[in-house]
Amino acid sequence: MQQQLNEVFHWIENNQQTAIRLLKRLVQEDSTRMQEFKGQAVIIEKCRELGLELDIWEIGEETMCHPLFHSDRKDFSENPNVVATLKGSGGGKSLIVNSHIDVVPVGNMDDWQYEPFSGKIMDGKLYGRGATDMKGGTVALLYVLEALKECGIHLKGDVIFQSVIEEESGGSGTLAAVVRGYKADGALIPEPTNLKIFPKLQGSLWFRINVFGKSAHAGTRYEGVNAIEKSMKVINMLQQLETKRNETITDPLYKNIKIPVPINVGKFYSGKWPSSVPDLAIIEGRLGVKPDETIDEAMAELQSSLNELIVEDEWFQEKPPKLEWFGARWLPSTIAADHPLLTTVAESYQSIIGQKAIIEASPWATDGGMLYHAGGIPVVVFGPGITKLAHDSDEYILLEDIITAAKIIAKTVIHWCEISEK
Amino acid sequence: MQQQLNEVFHWIENNQQTAIRLLKRLVQEDSTRMQEFKGQAVIIEKCRELGLELDIWEIGEETMCHPLFHSDRKDFSENPNVVATLKGSGGGKSLIVNSHIDVVPVGNMDDWQYEPFSGKIMDGKLYGRGATDMKGGTVALLYVLEALKECGIHLKGDVIFQSVIEEESGGSGTLAAVVRGYKADGALIPEPTNLKIFPKLQGSLWFRINVFGKSAHAGTRYEGVNAIEKSMKVINMLQQLETKRNETITDPLYKNIKIPVPINVGKFYSGKWPSSVPDLAIIEGRLGVKPDETIDEAMAELQSSLNELIVEDEWFQEKPPKLEWFGARWLPSTIAADHPLLTTVAESYQSIIGQKAIIEASPWATDGGMLYHAGGIPVVVFGPGITKLAHDSDEYILLEDIITAAKIIAKTVIHWCEISEK
Repeated sequence: MQQQLNEVFHWIENNQQTAIRLLKRLVQEDSTRMQEFKGQAVIIEKCRELGLELDIWEIGEETMCHPLFHSDRKDFSENPNVVATLKGSGGGKSLIVNSHIDVVPVGNMDDWQYEPFSGKIMDGKLYGRGATDMKGGTVALLYVLEALKECGIHLKGDVIFQSVIEEESGGSGTLAAVVRGYKADGALIPEPTNLKIFPKLQGSLWFRINVFGKSAHAGTRYEGVNAIEKSMKVINMLQQLETKRNETITDPLYKNIKIPVPINVGKFYSGKWPSSVPDLAIIEGRLGVKPDETIDEAMAELQSSLNELIVEDEWFQEKPPKLEWFGARWLPSTIAADHPLLTTVAESYQSIIGQKAIIEASPWATDGGMLYHAGGIPVVVFGPGITKLAHDSDEYILLEDIITAAKIIAKTVIHWCEISEK
Repeated sequence: MQQQLNEVFHWIENNQQTAIRLLKRLVQEDSTRMQEFKGQAVIIEKCRELGLELDIWEIGEETMCHPLFHSDRKDFSENPNVVATLKGSGGGKSLIVNSHIDVVPVGNMDDWQYEPFSGKIMDGKLYGRGATDMKGGTVALLYVLEALKECGIHLKGDVIFQSVIEEESGGSGTLAAVVRGYKADGALIPEPTNLKIFPKLQGSLWFRINVFGKSAHAGTRYEGVNAIEKSMKVINMLQQLETKRNETITDPLYKNIKIPVPINVGKFYSGKWPSSVPDLAIIEGRLGVKPDETIDEAMAELQSSLNELIVEDEWFQEKPPKLEWFGARWLPSTIAADHPLLTTVAESYQSIIGQKAIIEASPWATDGGMLYHAGGIPVVVFGPGITKLAHDSDEYILLEDIITAAKIIAKTVIHWCEISEK
């Protein structure tokens, strides 16, 4: 096996331009929500070229009726999921390698020094929205499959490559793949972990808080109640709740993570006229869920903090802020510390890098929770991107890390699925 | 003259349904910005019926080049200004009676118990957006003109009725009327003063503050800087500045006004994704300008407070919030305490109500500042609406106050313009 592995590593070393070209093409396609097809077209073309068994379908009723479906999206047409299988000869363990094609919006364009869909390459980095989260990871996976093909390696177990939509909105794409019947003995998700290994995934979900005011003319603003000013109390409450929730986390896997399960205020909309006192403010955000708590417990804790705030405030008693849970919901999950998939990834890392892998809790949720809860599939998250650059402006990835990740994933795949001599 | 006055009062008493019907029709037309024509159509029909000399025109270049033009609106087509003149025989003082047809947006519909454009009448009140601000005042003016006509009274001085657009956005409509040549010896604006007399008008202007952050994934929010959280500091600064500015006001005309020149935060927009740290927040609001300060002085004070905040905050030093002045700008103005127009309104009030009028500073700006600064016309603001309901939900007006205001305005007009015996 070592000889075959060496051939694969050699091919990976010598064909880096193949991977870089693919990443550039993928980043140049703006595959934000509702236009994921732009990225999927590139994926489909590549999978055809690799001779994989392709399954391309749009999310439909069977997924939307599933109890774990939580989405504000009603229309999935023309933005398909893609699954491409490298069939094994049988007898080995199967592996899902899962990657999402959707990227988050670019935000304030002024903060981008480089055009977000240029795929500009400079100093060993490729820039653009999605470079790190997670088209770099996607390319690492496809690069591994290409290396196996080019080196003539056949496996016993299936490798099921999934390019899903909707990860950034709560995992409907991955849910749809489970509902369609895709299961495996394990799954690897190459989200941007800085080449660390994440066995513990937090959950998260989106919330919306409607804060009410009372309108008035700006000149007599004291006759009204400003929904923006009242919202500041709600945001303060969220900040305090975040502190309180994170103080209780003692798991050593979180020891280097500044805020294990953050609460983020991501959107704030209020008012229609500078000279009127606004009577409604809408706060939207993301609540991190601890790996050892349920979504319901996390929801109850936020509702309870809001209730306490209402009791303290006369206006809120009259017009209580309204908490809604909408759209995305990612489930937490954990793989056992001695699970063979985790061991295989860690050993592959150590043999290639020459030192022990860093094993840490994930600072965010991934589709791993969905694979685990909907499909019962144990998941390890490990990938080449830069954790802190996900969703940031001037997002980039180190091209070298893609190559390194590809080698570690190739070794993991070969160990897990085993080489078939047929 | 007393006999003719009595006839006018008598006619006003006996034809209240005429005024109420007109108000209902006007309120039923949603004349928010860009669709003021809906209200103007009703005005034009009424002025034709009264046989007034009509002038209907769209705001154009000549106004947009004026140094006092401050507006974010570029297109005034199909939403005309209307001026209707009751020509006098000559020899008397002329009077502009100025009213605006635009209304502010309704805000959160859920806060309205009554449909905002129904014009519903109940318990002596007429409900709807604009009932108080200021279609009730408009109707009082037209009702006076109708009474004069029906009682066969001819005046020496002209009465120039103006139904302007854009008052809620800074006075381009009134500026256009001045530019078109309309001047007079005095002006009365029946904004909702609760039948108080406002000789002192504050100014105000709109500001926009762009607050910058640094985007990041919600799960690693500590890698970013949340523009919403940073904006809370800016809003705190605005609150403190408001306190500081108002502490310096000692004019007894403000003694019953809770906050003489408020700063209102009317709009707040930030973020595009619940799971991203937002990197830009936009705050829009209205800065009250003291009657004894210039617009420039007020602007400089806000900029200086923002500069102080920047010095205190490390992030703001790196990415300073940017202050812009956009759109509306209303000028402050004051009429002398012994000006004959002020005396005439006050005496008319006293003779009809039987007690002294309450004379107070205005809690908001009006188009009076524009008439004064662009046209040199002394202005008194006096009208029937309810001050605190302007821009509020379930805005209404007491129908009785329209009738009372009409009598006081009729007496003012007759005294000011004088009856012609020709």
